[in-house]
Amino acid sequence: MNSFELYNPVRVFFGEGQVSHIDEQIPKDARVLLTYGGGSIHRTGIYDAVRRALGARYVVDFGGIEPNPHYETLIKALPIIESEGITFILAVGGGSVIDGTKFIAAAAQYSGEDKWMLLQNPTLASAIEAMPFGTVLTLAATGSEMNNGAVITRAQTQEKFAFHNPTTFPKFSIVDPSYTLSLPIRQVANGVVDAFVHVVEQYLTYPVDARVQDRFAEGLLQTLVEIGPAVLKTPNDMGLRSNLSMAAMLALNGWIATGVPEDWSTHLIGHELTALFHLDHGLTLAIVLPHLLRDQLQYKQAKLVQCGERVFGITQGTEKERALQTIDAIERFFLTMYDGKLRLADYGIAREQVAEAWQRIGARRWKLGENRTIDAAAVERILTAAL
Amino acid sequence: MNSFELYNPVRVFFGEGQVSHIDEQIPKDARVLLTYGGGSIHRTGIYDAVRRALGARYVVDFGGIEPNPHYETLIKALPIIESEGITFILAVGGGSVIDGTKFIAAAAQYSGEDKWMLLQNPTLASAIEAMPFGTVLTLAATGSEMNNGAVITRAQTQEKFAFHNPTTFPKFSIVDPSYTLSLPIRQVANGVVDAFVHVVEQYLTYPVDARVQDRFAEGLLQTLVEIGPAVLKTPNDMGLRSNLSMAAMLALNGWIATGVPEDWSTHLIGHELTALFHLDHGLTLAIVLPHLLRDQLQYKQAKLVQCGERVFGITQGTEKERALQTIDAIERFFLTMYDGKLRLADYGIAREQVAEAWQRIGARRWKLGENRTIDAAAVERILTAAL
Repeated sequence: MNSFELYNPVRVFFGEGQVSHIDEQIPKDARVLLTYGGGSIHRTGIYDAVRRALGARYVVDFGGIEPNPHYETLIKALPIIESEGITFILAVGGGSVIDGTKFIAAAAQYSGEDKWMLLQNPTLASAIEAMPFGTVLTLAATGSEMNNGAVITRAQTQEKFAFHNPTTFPKFSIVDPSYTLSLPIRQVANGVVDAFVHVVEQYLTYPVDARVQDRFAEGLLQTLVEIGPAVLKTPNDMGLRSNLSMAAMLALNGWIATGVPEDWSTHLIGHELTALFHLDHGLTLAIVLPHLLRDQLQYKQAKLVQCGERVFGITQGTEKERALQTIDAIERFFLTMYDGKLRLADYGIAREQVAEAWQRIGARRWKLGENRTIDAAAVERILTAAL
Repeated sequence: MNSFELYNPVRVFFGEGQVSHIDEQIPKDARVLLTYGGGSIHRTGIYDAVRRALGARYVVDFGGIEPNPHYETLIKALPIIESEGITFILAVGGGSVIDGTKFIAAAAQYSGEDKWMLLQNPTLASAIEAMPFGTVLTLAATGSEMNNGAVITRAQTQEKFAFHNPTTFPKFSIVDPSYTLSLPIRQVANGVVDAFVHVVEQYLTYPVDARVQDRFAEGLLQTLVEIGPAVLKTPNDMGLRSNLSMAAMLALNGWIATGVPEDWSTHLIGHELTALFHLDHGLTLAIVLPHLLRDQLQYKQAKLVQCGERVFGITQGTEKERALQTIDAIERFFLTMYDGKLRLADYGIAREQVAEAWQRIGARRWKLGENRTIDAAAVERILTAAL
């Protein structure tokens, strides 16, 4: 097992009706910026429940944060924070709203003119003491409610970058699984796959004898494989939704990353597909991962064999055969979640267009993966296989 | 799954050589009380390593905290804290030293004359803002390094009570598995069993469809069953020690308790055996648990069947037979850890003496267990079976 530092001070209130905790968690005299997305929280009654919990506090709305939140949208919050004397931000939404809010909370405390620098310069970003914020989660997927990371898109240049900061942990998060019931089923599928791939990126590398972390990762994968197809069939089952909310939160809150190698290449390649073609984040991961695993088999075989046995019950064949069967099982699971459509061609994307993705990665000289073996040429192979 | 609140702000530095983080985690101008136990940290060099990391800070030693730390010992730290102007406490030791330090940190801020009240009155205890403290762990067992709970013994009355407080989380904990290498093998066995039973107390109750929590609990149990006998055979294997340190920490840091019923009856009965007969804490748990599970079979059968299948591979027989086989497997595991000696008679304890344990529980009118079905009569049955 590798050495690690573990720190996660987010206070989570999990379960139905937990929204009332907002009142005890935000100072009575706070001036609150309420951040949200396209406005579905008005239809679902979540907006009203949050406003009731906020009581007499002064509240300014900041809606319109889009999926894959845009830098251009987020920076519009900064003059409002200044002119309204905002002291606390409350994000109500899914990962995009929460990620966007983390960026706002940091950018509001950054005195530099060009806030985009926070996404270009990790040292700069990590030196900022962000504004305090809390979250009310409406979509189980990204785990952003219990970590300090964010992914922001610059629409102008079609770029998508990650950032994190020691102070961009939510002060609290309300995770009420009933708030996820009104989601379109496609977003539920995206959430299941996003959480599954978060676990994979922290698990399918090479063994380091981290037994508990492996068991925890496998427990999350088992849970997602069990409940993913079930939640698509019976979307109103609160038990399934609760378990999905729990699994998605724990898939990316730092716990299973302790002491193990990580490989975020599927996310980074997927980010390019979203930036270029506006494909859903979860879908891009499902398109990329199986081909990436086949391409990197020699590095990931041992963990794939372990995953096959413990998660999918695969015990027959040579090590290589079992590793390949495991990848097939993952792909079948993804196909179930996306109605059998996992080729780029299913979404009208041809080779000429997708070439931009590996050219960008080449231009940045990225070498991704736990062994730095995934360069532009590997991405070309992977995405060509996904056509 | 039940609703829950999850909050654990402990910053953990895990791995060899992590002791150097002390310097960045304690204020430069802090006046430090260094708490420890019988002095083995002098022999092992851990004391010197900690003092080096503390640099030029003003340090006052407070050694001599015994196993099952005594109230009578701990309150002697309070005048020292006052006269020396102590501002930070650093606990170097196992669960007893850390538990004792939590009590000192809270009692130092309690203005009342009788500090024992903190163990009698949970409301009083939870209202105190404890002094800040950190820990350097030398024994993987109790998980005290990553939670806010403590168990304190009053020698005068042979009583053992638990307390916790929202502010008695360590500010940081150094978990260097190499620091556990010098332990007597009996203490290693106690640690494995203590961690195992911590998991059981949060897992072997009744099902509430908490899939991730169950998988995590089972992952910890599997890990402990794998490494327990191995670590007794090859006590210097750092990989086993690292995994044991990890499992013991996560067995009682709040994660697997989220959203599930708990049953701390084995610990509470075990505490009586330690208070009355000075048996090791881990040993008392191993003596009590199998008989308690058999006595409470009707309430715990469903989870015992699940545990049997997932942890011990037990799949044959009726539900009741499988549940009983699971208890037998747990008992066999404990027998391996304690050299085959798990009867009270093995430790010279006869029925007349042990009757005091259930009489005390009867006098307190305790009804323990997740269904409040474990009263004095049940404890009499359980301990009689353990004779």
